[in-house]
Amino acid sequence: MPEPHTADGGTGRFDRLFDRLWDELAPIGRDRATGGYRRFTFGGPDAELRDWFHRAAAGVGLDAETDGNGNMWAWWGAPGPDAVVTGSHLDSVPDGGAYDGPLGVVSALAAVAELRRRGVRPRRPLAVAVFAEEEGARFGVPCLGSRLLTGAVTAERAAALADPSGTTWAQAMERAGRDPAAMGPDPERLARIGRFVELHVEQGRALADRDRAVGAARSIWPHGRWRWTFTGRADHAGTTRLEDRRDPMLPMARMVLAARAAAAAHGAVATVGRVEAEPNGTNAIASRVRAWLDARAPDTEDLGAVVADVAAEVRRAAEEQGVGAEEHQESDTPVVEFDGGLTERAAAVAGGAGGPVPILPTGAGHDAGVLAAHVPTAMLFVRNPTGVSHSPEEYAERPDCHAGVWALADVLEDLAAGEEGASGPRPPRPPRQ
Amino acid sequence: MPEPHTADGGTGRFDRLFDRLWDELAPIGRDRATGGYRRFTFGGPDAELRDWFHRAAAGVGLDAETDGNGNMWAWWGAPGPDAVVTGSHLDSVPDGGAYDGPLGVVSALAAVAELRRRGVRPRRPLAVAVFAEEEGARFGVPCLGSRLLTGAVTAERAAALADPSGTTWAQAMERAGRDPAAMGPDPERLARIGRFVELHVEQGRALADRDRAVGAARSIWPHGRWRWTFTGRADHAGTTRLEDRRDPMLPMARMVLAARAAAAAHGAVATVGRVEAEPNGTNAIASRVRAWLDARAPDTEDLGAVVADVAAEVRRAAEEQGVGAEEHQESDTPVVEFDGGLTERAAAVAGGAGGPVPILPTGAGHDAGVLAAHVPTAMLFVRNPTGVSHSPEEYAERPDCHAGVWALADVLEDLAAGEEGASGPRPPRPPRQ
Repeated sequence: MPEPHTADGGTGRFDRLFDRLWDELAPIGRDRATGGYRRFTFGGPDAELRDWFHRAAAGVGLDAETDGNGNMWAWWGAPGPDAVVTGSHLDSVPDGGAYDGPLGVVSALAAVAELRRRGVRPRRPLAVAVFAEEEGARFGVPCLGSRLLTGAVTAERAAALADPSGTTWAQAMERAGRDPAAMGPDPERLARIGRFVELHVEQGRALADRDRAVGAARSIWPHGRWRWTFTGRADHAGTTRLEDRRDPMLPMARMVLAARAAAAAHGAVATVGRVEAEPNGTNAIASRVRAWLDARAPDTEDLGAVVADVAAEVRRAAEEQGVGAEEHQESDTPVVEFDGGLTERAAAVAGGAGGPVPILPTGAGHDAGVLAAHVPTAMLFVRNPTGVSHSPEEYAERPDCHAGVWALADVLEDLAAGEEGASGPRPPRPPRQ
Repeated sequence: MPEPHTADGGTGRFDRLFDRLWDELAPIGRDRATGGYRRFTFGGPDAELRDWFHRAAAGVGLDAETDGNGNMWAWWGAPGPDAVVTGSHLDSVPDGGAYDGPLGVVSALAAVAELRRRGVRPRRPLAVAVFAEEEGARFGVPCLGSRLLTGAVTAERAAALADPSGTTWAQAMERAGRDPAAMGPDPERLARIGRFVELHVEQGRALADRDRAVGAARSIWPHGRWRWTFTGRADHAGTTRLEDRRDPMLPMARMVLAARAAAAAHGAVATVGRVEAEPNGTNAIASRVRAWLDARAPDTEDLGAVVADVAAEVRRAAEEQGVGAEEHQESDTPVVEFDGGLTERAAAVAGGAGGPVPILPTGAGHDAGVLAAHVPTAMLFVRNPTGVSHSPEEYAERPDCHAGVWALADVLEDLAAGEEGASGPRPPRPPRQ
């Protein structure tokens, strides 16, 4: 029977292991000026992160390997069918936080340690996975590692994706010592996964509002990214009459404001976080401005309405200014409904005697969302007191992180050992969170 | 008596020289992708441009030297008091045109050749000057070379100005083989200048509208540059509720629109041509956005009204979004009235038998505007058929360029040879332009 968990740190070894792994990871890829992380796939600190994972996995008795798409897998038992897989990612957005991704990886390893301490002998193979380029921060397509694995992105398309310096995914892979020819769908590996559970820091305040440390995900909002290119005419800022200007900055500004208004009107979120002007000179009217719209909504219809509202305003503004406006959809992620049975079972197990943890919708994309189209998938969330994410201020209290590990360990134990669809009676434990 | 000028190219040697010098200059610093110029001070093609000037000046019998501020001077006769100086600059804005600056330098050299052909023996020293960093494209302060010369910018401030990569003006100077210790006001050199005349491509369509090839400048509008820094909070674009956001992109957008509206309301021009977002990620709310306002108006009062309107709207927008907004004025150029007597004399001489050329106000800053505070100064403009400037599309017809050289040669001959304040009777010439 597992030792009772105490939310204030406790005495179990899993929390000490969590703290140690967390401290090892903390300095890797951290920008001293901003305090944020710049962990980009196959660049800079990527090799160090991969070495860390190999060592950390070995430390809990798992053998790590890398698949043809740059994802890492650490196995407990022979890689085989019907495996229970957990994990997340180690890459970050530019100046990202410490928790988005790494929390799921460190928690997975600590949970494995806790299962070993409990003396669990899994009846199914168990694995910890680390997916590559989840944020899409370097090559523009989020969840690239899991999408390649499942075939949602083809090897041809991925190989040609270029980072801002022009280096392609294939070149970056090769420079990191990996063979780009091995890239592509891996149905055999995918077929090994019986169930997938990803633990992640919550990127919102729903758990904080409910005063709970752990939750589960019901669904991921549909999501898309659209790049707008406004083409005007470079001209002298001091001498060109207002009526002679074709200034692409003006429709860009209207787009930024339209995105916010449309999101508010349709109960969605919409963001312009990236803008690039050319030549970007103080005394020159821009010749070209590109701006990226990220939009997400509870359902496809609302999402379509947001994007249509923005497009209508943008086209109006561009026409008024004599500026060209071109739209290009960079990504399209349909709504993801996580496996209902698995989610309810995980929520019940994770909540223990305290009753099921809350099940919440989310606006963030995850590798779990990609895998959900192929295997029964669930997600656990750990409370984020401010809701801030993709920022150096992203944070979770340490006792909540430990509670997350405990909940994940319970869920993994149940899934690896239990009967199909029934977790069976479990020893009573004190309520928590 | 000078040979009659023919606007279609003629047979005089000055136009063949103009064409040859123009062709030599054309490939230097040209960006193959955009067709625009990237001639930044003390970087990339700067050394090649300086070599070209030395060779070209030697070709018309002038000795070129470089002063302590990086400006070049090529003298006809011993450098001495009461000199007639003409010239312009060779640096460009990013992706700038071929004419802004170089037209004045090439025309000055061709005009010297024409004076030699005419057998003119100047009674005053004559010089062709090339001022450094006129556009301020690399170090942010326009007319830096002439401002250092006159003391309008101190050596201390200039030395510390940094380009986007962090290289300072002093470091760039040193790497270019120049001694930063020699930088600073040069009253002795300034005192040599009796009168300054800058020829420049028009950056507007006033001459085209009047069907004239050449004009003169009456005044330069007052002008300033303001950098606004909006500080918000980086956050996840998919999961952060609209009401929890502190998105600096929104006040930036309001600033862009307010600048245009305020300019229209006050008969001015105002431009946001440069915007920089951080971290500039598609799926992250920006933590910080900087935007630069360039504003110019017929008088100081109108300019103040434009800037006040923009500031009021920006502060309102920033407060609504919970975003910090800081204003920093990067430059402030008061109204410049060119020397009335000199301008009327130059306009009369430049127009010849066709009557004085039109005298126009302009919104563009020039080294002539800086020098005008110290010495009698005038400007000549050459027709720009589209008015487009600071753009690869900037253009002047070749016959108009030749007409500009002819007019400049006439003005220089008059100033170098004539009595103070009276050009005296000149031989009749056929009307032109």
